[in-house]
Amino acid sequence: MATNKMLLACILALSFSVALASVVPVQDFCVADPNGIALVNGVACKDPKLVKEDDFFFSGFDKRGNTSNPMGSKVTQFNVAQIPGLNTLGVATVRLDFAPLGLNAPHTHPRASEIMIVLRGTLEVGFITSNPELRHFKKVLNKGDMFVFPIGLIHYQKNVGKGHAVAIAAFNSQNPGSIPVATTVFHAMPNIDSDIVAKAFQLDKVFVESIQSKV
Amino acid sequence: MATNKMLLACILALSFSVALASVVPVQDFCVADPNGIALVNGVACKDPKLVKEDDFFFSGFDKRGNTSNPMGSKVTQFNVAQIPGLNTLGVATVRLDFAPLGLNAPHTHPRASEIMIVLRGTLEVGFITSNPELRHFKKVLNKGDMFVFPIGLIHYQKNVGKGHAVAIAAFNSQNPGSIPVATTVFHAMPNIDSDIVAKAFQLDKVFVESIQSKV
Amino acid sequence: MATNKMLLACILALSFSVALASVVPVQDFCVADPNGIALVNGVACKDPKLVKEDDFFFSGFDKRGNTSNPMGSKVTQFNVAQIPGLNTLGVATVRLDFAPLGLNAPHTHPRASEIMIVLRGTLEVGFITSNPELRHFKKVLNKGDMFVFPIGLIHYQKNVGKGHAVAIAAFNSQNPGSIPVATTVFHAMPNIDSDIVAKAFQLDKVFVESIQSKV
Amino acid sequence: MATNKMLLACILALSFSVALASVVPVQDFCVADPNGIALVNGVACKDPKLVKEDDFFFSGFDKRGNTSNPMGSKVTQFNVAQIPGLNTLGVATVRLDFAPLGLNAPHTHPRASEIMIVLRGTLEVGFITSNPELRHFKKVLNKGDMFVFPIGLIHYQKNVGKGHAVAIAAFNSQNPGSIPVATTVFHAMPNIDSDIVAKAFQLDKVFVESIQSKV
Amino acid sequence: MATNKMLLACILALSFSVALASVVPVQDFCVADPNGIALVNGVACKDPKLVKEDDFFFSGFDKRGNTSNPMGSKVTQFNVAQIPGLNTLGVATVRLDFAPLGLNAPHTHPRASEIMIVLRGTLEVGFITSNPELRHFKKVLNKGDMFVFPIGLIHYQKNVGKGHAVAIAAFNSQNPGSIPVATTVFHAMPNIDSDIVAKAFQLDKVFVESIQSKV
Amino acid sequence: MATNKMLLACILALSFSVALASVVPVQDFCVADPNGIALVNGVACKDPKLVKEDDFFFSGFDKRGNTSNPMGSKVTQFNVAQIPGLNTLGVATVRLDFAPLGLNAPHTHPRASEIMIVLRGTLEVGFITSNPELRHFKKVLNKGDMFVFPIGLIHYQKNVGKGHAVAIAAFNSQNPGSIPVATTVFHAMPNIDSDIVAKAFQLDKVFVESIQSKV
Repeated sequence: MATNKMLLACILALSFSVALASVVPVQDFCVADPNGIALVNGVACKDPKLVKEDDFFFSGFDKRGNTSNPMGSKVTQFNVAQIPGLNTLGVATVRLDFAPLGLNAPHTHPRASEIMIVLRGTLEVGFITSNPELRHFKKVLNKGDMFVFPIGLIHYQKNVGKGHAVAIAAFNSQNPGSIPVATTVFHAMPNIDSDIVAKAFQLDKVFVESIQSKV
Repeated sequence: MATNKMLLACILALSFSVALASVVPVQDFCVADPNGIALVNGVACKDPKLVKEDDFFFSGFDKRGNTSNPMGSKVTQFNVAQIPGLNTLGVATVRLDFAPLGLNAPHTHPRASEIMIVLRGTLEVGFITSNPELRHFKKVLNKGDMFVFPIGLIHYQKNVGKGHAVAIAAFNSQNPGSIPVATTVFHAMPNIDSDIVAKAFQLDKVFVESIQSKV
Repeated sequence: MATNKMLLACILALSFSVALASVVPVQDFCVADPNGIALVNGVACKDPKLVKEDDFFFSGFDKRGNTSNPMGSKVTQFNVAQIPGLNTLGVATVRLDFAPLGLNAPHTHPRASEIMIVLRGTLEVGFITSNPELRHFKKVLNKGDMFVFPIGLIHYQKNVGKGHAVAIAAFNSQNPGSIPVATTVFHAMPNIDSDIVAKAFQLDKVFVESIQSKV
Repeated sequence: MATNKMLLACILALSFSVALASVVPVQDFCVADPNGIALVNGVACKDPKLVKEDDFFFSGFDKRGNTSNPMGSKVTQFNVAQIPGLNTLGVATVRLDFAPLGLNAPHTHPRASEIMIVLRGTLEVGFITSNPELRHFKKVLNKGDMFVFPIGLIHYQKNVGKGHAVAIAAFNSQNPGSIPVATTVFHAMPNIDSDIVAKAFQLDKVFVESIQSKV
Repeated sequence: MATNKMLLACILALSFSVALASVVPVQDFCVADPNGIALVNGVACKDPKLVKEDDFFFSGFDKRGNTSNPMGSKVTQFNVAQIPGLNTLGVATVRLDFAPLGLNAPHTHPRASEIMIVLRGTLEVGFITSNPELRHFKKVLNKGDMFVFPIGLIHYQKNVGKGHAVAIAAFNSQNPGSIPVATTVFHAMPNIDSDIVAKAFQLDKVFVESIQSKV
Repeated sequence: MATNKMLLACILALSFSVALASVVPVQDFCVADPNGIALVNGVACKDPKLVKEDDFFFSGFDKRGNTSNPMGSKVTQFNVAQIPGLNTLGVATVRLDFAPLGLNAPHTHPRASEIMIVLRGTLEVGFITSNPELRHFKKVLNKGDMFVFPIGLIHYQKNVGKGHAVAIAAFNSQNPGSIPVATTVFHAMPNIDSDIVAKAFQLDKVFVESIQSKV
């Protein structure tokens, strides 16, 4: 009987992990040419002879983001659009500022997983797994705590402490992208048909239109 | 002056595409062992000697999905959970059924891009790009028409024809995943705090809780 | 003794699968610029501001392919060459038409795995594994049945039903490529030396040359 | 007018290359456990403490392959099946021996590109591109010459010199696989239906069966 | 002449970048099973039903590293060995502490690029490109400044300010690895032959042995 | 008790390998345009119609490298810079020549794993794992022996036989790169501050400067 349990344990154990990895570039660096940066991806390499220290440098992580907005939060991005030397290297960061009760509203990153570290204050954070489980993992984080948000999953952070809160997050993409769920659904350009939003959210169509009409 | 324009054209032209690719497996196949299939990923390979035709086979694409539900639509999945031979091969499909006015509500696939083809009826489809543009691309599709939804972006399909509609979609993942935006935000397990949802969607908290309380 | 068997089971179990995945793009989309499309890969991104719905759209999946040819089959492609919005997204499809007894002759896709679904009729399909096993997996498929063909392996489909047959196939590449074995070996441009073909296929050299001389 | 030509040159120039890369492992090494090696892929890692020099070592590249066979050639493999330390590292080699007139018959590698170097003798080599071009690139190589065969394309090597010839080839896969076209088509296990082979190669069915019946 | 310049501009422009990307996992998460964590890579997935918030959580980023060592610096790692939920997600971070004049000695990360941000103090940082250029890019960074170190290149950080300095670095790997050049060359286990080190560094062999003999 | 051992065996067994793979290109080939080759990566594709056999060809592997230099060794490279057809294909080779006692000094390849085969003579080879183990694996190799060096790890080869030695090495990158540790640390352009090198190697600063001042 013990061996039967063992067999079960072995079989269960046979569902494995795969530690996925990044893709190797094909040269030391390929600094994005400032003239091509507007399109973010696949911009031209600067002539390597013209590459200089400042292509790998950026400043301003210590500047508090302006949280005077309805969400009371600000995400300051440090990706390939700001740092051309990140081009082809597959990593980027952001600074997150939160006024008291400030919210980084539910969103996804379509092209990266994220690890976030609280530098100051107290945040409640969470993510929800995909269909059909929709399991909600959440945690209150204090200074020095960190949390992981897997690629593509909806997640959020809220300041639940008394003062301003600050966090840093890192991504395994030079351009992780961000999809704010509520804004995307209610304020796309042009709007999604109110019929569709109303049915998806099981809301009244007129009510949806009233939300859509707000800027 | 003409050469200046040329220079500009050249510089503009320097924003390039990168045709990304899939990752090569390291053997002809690695059929998922049925004992390990529950966890979907990284399950054990069946002993190749025991692999048989039926591991690469599945049936039932011709069966109409049951659309008797509030959304009036049904997604029937054909991925590695159904077809163990898909393991490691990076491709999967679904069948989409829509009752008249049926909606496949706004959702994302966290791990794959999608190409969808209308086999019957008329669908209105759309996707919205990431922050800050949130551009909404949409199109009405008839039988034989196809449309592309890039990885991680919110998209939807709605039956705007008179009868039942059917589509097939293909994905570049053996397990693309699906995140239905409205359900995730309003009906995670457990729920996201109503404060957070209310603030994100700029709705009344009591109203959010009334939605959350519905099954 | 039971534990010895257990140990053996554990050790056997240690041959695992690796669920390989696709590669993430670095922006929402990079629509192929029509001026560059001829070379298929790595074409320039269209200026995102000029991208429109039709870049992600294509029509004609419902059009029957012309099977009036010696093989009695037709493959209609829907990949990045037809749909510029597929660029960088790693997925494509084809429509397969078969006259009665029509054959999609043995071929490989050098850059993608495939899942095929029968939409109409009855097909016999098969693939053969690599050296030295050369195992042949085959199956008769009816409407609604699907089958998987792993990347790079030789496979074929034949209409073994009474009427016209139709299938759809999906690939995890924007440009899977196709290598028809017989045509490649006997009708390359220029031809492979008849000595080589004769020796490889253990055929008479004059006979090989007679095949090569047919168009 | 000159500027118009320039514009054309620029536009043509916008069809780019993408220098694709390998995938990074997630640890220094993961030596294949000899108990699991039979399945080649995804075998268990040996306990790193038990890993020793010989796991990264193999001998015998200097041994001449036995070319006493109908093709007059022999491919000796040095991949993860022989060298467990290659596991997860994505590289492998072979030694190719050719008797005079010996042929490494047309074949593909489903999971790797190849670079081959002639160490002794004279080889005629070639590969054919995919449908519909089927362009045949070929070259006679002498000692010290090298040639590239892109992933998945049909290629061959033939000894066109007077003596024994030797070459080395390297692949970007720990298990590139090999699909010998003629053997696969005529001697799969079990055989492909003679009807199918006859139609594909436009040969007489009885003749196909006579080839299939030879061992 | 203007057109010649244009031509030159076009040709120069034809050296492009490739914005490389990460690899997508095949499920929402695959939390490393704590029993398997010792080997870091490819550990078993925990049963998803048993996964909990704390698998994605870690604490202690705010704890100052102990810099009482010859280098006067301390790297505190937060990767998959500490946070099992990072498994398969391809991202990790470290905290860097520097006493005054403290040095994070020249090292490489064999499996990731890095972006580092100064949280406190002043650091001089640099990296050197590969053979044959060996170009040395360096920069003095103050609080809020950030710098990029491409995968595999030798780099270092030194506290050139007056007080304790702190930085955070992020990597696009769950286990980037670190290779401290001096320690590896002079204190491998067992040591590299003193002959080899002496010749490589063009030092006296006895002198090399005296260094090697120090702990 | 037996079952306890079994449990241990199972748990140990749960540390798995992941057989990583290369990335698939998106076309048969993308030959590097000679005008763009200087920057190595992401050069333009030649118009496929203009591609010819010689783009996949290179000569000179049989030429002995000039070992009349302080290290007594020479690495002759055969990568995408020499063979434009290698572009996007992820594989390259080198020829290694060693005078008696010649040394290929400790170095890393930032973008590829390596397999090396001794074609003539006797080499002592070794690599050292990453921090904190720094395990040194070494082996004496004779003609026909091969050894594996994992990506990014410091490794070396030394001629310990009586005559000239020759080896070939293959890499899973079209441009693996090489970082010679001693030269990089002591002779970067410009030099690393002598303070930093002195502290890292625990050498006297004046002594470091004397080494740095030698060419």
